[in-house]
Amino acid sequence: MSGYDDGNIFAKILRGEIPAAKIFETDDFVAIMDVMPQSKGHCLLLPKAPSRNLLDADDTTLAKALPELARLARAAKAAFDADGVVMNQFNEEAGGQTVFHLHFHVVPHYEGVPLKRHASGMADPAELREHAEAIRAALA
Amino acid sequence: MSGYDDGNIFAKILRGEIPAAKIFETDDFVAIMDVMPQSKGHCLLLPKAPSRNLLDADDTTLAKALPELARLARAAKAAFDADGVVMNQFNEEAGGQTVFHLHFHVVPHYEGVPLKRHASGMADPAELREHAEAIRAALA
Repeated sequence: MSGYDDGNIFAKILRGEIPAAKIFETDDFVAIMDVMPQSKGHCLLLPKAPSRNLLDADDTTLAKALPELARLARAAKAAFDADGVVMNQFNEEAGGQTVFHLHFHVVPHYEGVPLKRHASGMADPAELREHAEAIRAALA
Repeated sequence: MSGYDDGNIFAKILRGEIPAAKIFETDDFVAIMDVMPQSKGHCLLLPKAPSRNLLDADDTTLAKALPELARLARAAKAAFDADGVVMNQFNEEAGGQTVFHLHFHVVPHYEGVPLKRHASGMADPAELREHAEAIRAALA
């Protein structure tokens, strides 16, 4: 395992250097839509604190993350009337990690609708902004 | 979504009514080996507090869970010299949930070794106890 490199795409999003369909931002986290969604409403929670993944993350950040993820999962499920939700977090390349800034996936599941393969295609940015708005409305 | 039914298998394990290959127990959690592992070292974190899944869990439990999961992930990776680790949590049947007591999967990944399909077979209990001991040693 290497260390943390702040040139990764999520670090750039957190610094505002590249755009993202943002759902919410707190002192500690930013929630955004995944640009290559596996399902409608697939979103990500990014801690602002820099860590490569779960293996080097600090407990203070981790303690705050899961309550936020639960809120995000409930809102994503409600916003799109999903039948289930999966939370995933990948560590290291062999564990499927592609961006080396700690992040958590919230993936709504719909009965009878197979997931798209991750990274199989970029979503329309306008559609992602609409989905972010729908989740934000469900959070309120 | 229905409510919580304490007849589920994890509630029985938590009450000591059926055995499990236990890694550790704290005031709030029990960590055990998955009896149908997808890879060597596949283990589970079970909060003692009853909830169906992430969608109805209380924030107090959730705040404590992720630091424990990080420790478990680091220890499982170290114990078996895994190349990566995936953390999964499934909500509702459409989201792949099969036992309706909140639980988190920690699945070590090994380069070049495909995962077994979940629930494809029961592991040898003696082997699971050895694996639990190896993770416990790595935690110490």
